[in-house]
Amino acid sequence: MSDSSIITLMTDFGDRDAYAGSMKGVILSVDPDIKIVDITHQAAPFNLASAAYILSTYYALYPPGTVHVAVVDPGVGGPRAPIAVAAGGYYFALPDNGLLTMVLDACKDGCRARLIENPELIREDVSATFHGRDIFAPAAARLATGFPFDEVGPPILRPAALESAKLSVSANAIAGSAVHIDHYGSYITNITEERMSRFEGPPLLVRIGSFTIMGLSRTFTDKQQGELLAYIGSTGHLEIAVSRGSARESIGLPAGAEVTVRWRDSAG
Amino acid sequence: MSDSSIITLMTDFGDRDAYAGSMKGVILSVDPDIKIVDITHQAAPFNLASAAYILSTYYALYPPGTVHVAVVDPGVGGPRAPIAVAAGGYYFALPDNGLLTMVLDACKDGCRARLIENPELIREDVSATFHGRDIFAPAAARLATGFPFDEVGPPILRPAALESAKLSVSANAIAGSAVHIDHYGSYITNITEERMSRFEGPPLLVRIGSFTIMGLSRTFTDKQQGELLAYIGSTGHLEIAVSRGSARESIGLPAGAEVTVRWRDSAG
Amino acid sequence: MSDSSIITLMTDFGDRDAYAGSMKGVILSVDPDIKIVDITHQAAPFNLASAAYILSTYYALYPPGTVHVAVVDPGVGGPRAPIAVAAGGYYFALPDNGLLTMVLDACKDGCRARLIENPELIREDVSATFHGRDIFAPAAARLATGFPFDEVGPPILRPAALESAKLSVSANAIAGSAVHIDHYGSYITNITEERMSRFEGPPLLVRIGSFTIMGLSRTFTDKQQGELLAYIGSTGHLEIAVSRGSARESIGLPAGAEVTVRWRDSAG
Repeated sequence: MSDSSIITLMTDFGDRDAYAGSMKGVILSVDPDIKIVDITHQAAPFNLASAAYILSTYYALYPPGTVHVAVVDPGVGGPRAPIAVAAGGYYFALPDNGLLTMVLDACKDGCRARLIENPELIREDVSATFHGRDIFAPAAARLATGFPFDEVGPPILRPAALESAKLSVSANAIAGSAVHIDHYGSYITNITEERMSRFEGPPLLVRIGSFTIMGLSRTFTDKQQGELLAYIGSTGHLEIAVSRGSARESIGLPAGAEVTVRWRDSAG
Repeated sequence: MSDSSIITLMTDFGDRDAYAGSMKGVILSVDPDIKIVDITHQAAPFNLASAAYILSTYYALYPPGTVHVAVVDPGVGGPRAPIAVAAGGYYFALPDNGLLTMVLDACKDGCRARLIENPELIREDVSATFHGRDIFAPAAARLATGFPFDEVGPPILRPAALESAKLSVSANAIAGSAVHIDHYGSYITNITEERMSRFEGPPLLVRIGSFTIMGLSRTFTDKQQGELLAYIGSTGHLEIAVSRGSARESIGLPAGAEVTVRWRDSAG
Repeated sequence: MSDSSIITLMTDFGDRDAYAGSMKGVILSVDPDIKIVDITHQAAPFNLASAAYILSTYYALYPPGTVHVAVVDPGVGGPRAPIAVAAGGYYFALPDNGLLTMVLDACKDGCRARLIENPELIREDVSATFHGRDIFAPAAARLATGFPFDEVGPPILRPAALESAKLSVSANAIAGSAVHIDHYGSYITNITEERMSRFEGPPLLVRIGSFTIMGLSRTFTDKQQGELLAYIGSTGHLEIAVSRGSARESIGLPAGAEVTVRWRDSAG
């Protein structure tokens, strides 16, 4: 083990309590040399598609071996099993509720998943309501310091995936959704540049709610202040924004809104 | 000294300024190898009972020797003395205003407290308004790197304790208060499972404001969405929540509201 | 290189996304031993004077050699060049839009600035919209681990400075502005104690909007709860606050409001 074991944390715990701070204490009590990185503690608690998208944007930027913990779980205390997953050179510790949907899309094969059941990885007296502190934190800390993945618990076939993340594709259109609204009020969709590139040429228009945007822009400054634009964002996903403003305020739809991209009819 | 000196930070400085960032700079200038852990910078500035509760939930999860800094001080510039406390294998650096109330309950004896007065622990030209940067940060950094506790300053008999944290106990009831409202809108009380276990059997009801909750639940998912429930939370305290909702919104009372737990009259 | 390379991050990315978390991954992929310190991710995106002030308050508290990254850039995708600056024993990586205004005031000479253009410092396939991840993070990480400053890119004469940060000084008054409103609702001005000390004696009054405050206080507790006061804050700047309250709520003006300090007329 080097000094450089890294654990990242994404939760919906907010910033006003010591929930994340409690997880950090448990991790450092396993090994004080682990480096803990806060991603966000403001994940939307009941929007798993948003958290799944966010997770997919940063995990591969970290050094191989990093353990990514994500605790966003509307079903805590209910039936979602805690799992550990080895994928693409990284480990993940999270509830089996679909958070890995977009990561698994990327790792067609070679991803292994196990229930976290080995008592060595779990705090004694697990609370009914705080699996972050009692299961995910100690399990992640042990994985970060070399605990064998195959001893985490029994294997599972495949982690849960979100249905809502799926696209509907026709001859000249893709229909998806705005899985996330970011800090700037931009809608980020589950429609990727890679998927769009399988159509011929640039799209004719992008539609969200009653708004239609003609063509794609390269960046915010291509448009006048206040104008809507669609563009491929920094994570390779189609985004809808307002130049120097908030698309959320202009459009008014919540996360989850349908987004359609249309190409010119080849017959047209 | 190992490479693993740890300092945790809880403040009411908010997340928009560089107040916490200034403290971190002072700490790392004492020793760049100190590990700084953010707990929260959103402590409620005028609710010391809330901050005292939060502090009690994480401090013991850290490796022994960790220095816990808490700067929540409505009286800054006024008469609250900066103190350092050694308790339970940990150090604390904080204003003497009651923040340690719940920690001291746990360490009946063996807790030592000193005023932070040694000029070696304090920045030159202490500002009137920013003791976090000028006193607590450098003192914590020195304690984390082995400065002898007994040389911090003159001893004090006992740190201040909050009156508001006290319980009123009768033959068949405990009256306390909701010391903290968490990110999810749940009321967390100063009534602990340990205290409740001195009564016979499970409680009959829990009352907050005009709301009465019959019996205790084990977890959120024991109730229908939107229903009020009372349960022992992950920190061993009685909590009042709404399943998949916000008790704060349903009940509408601020932190500090009275909470009563009642058992069946033995004569009833 | 020691184990103690430090990079601080100030951005306007907010706390709900993984933008800062993505930068951290890029940095740790260059060297997992770099220590990353969050200052704030809530800088006001369209108030560069505020971010410039904040940056000036913490940078010099860090150990020499620290790399300070600031990504607050309303012009992203537009013409603001990414630059690296060596000043006062520190490095800075930021857009050339005036964020360094107050730092440069302090380093009359000896400050060197270069465009970040060397491809070794930049991620391949730089996105149009996320220079934090693709330029500033890798450049800062390389600087923190010893990359020669002179090879960053071509030198520039002097980084941009904000006009709005300038003072207007007459025989018995200084007119400046409230560059920042902090978490407590206090107005922090660009008028420093040092500049005020060039007048004779204490000022007669401080004016903001239609409010006039007579004289300076030493600290919050000099006044009754709810009263306005003016004082020299912990960063050496003139501040306007309300004792145990919010000046922002009492005064109602946004950041940028004009503030005047007046001394007795020598003829008066």
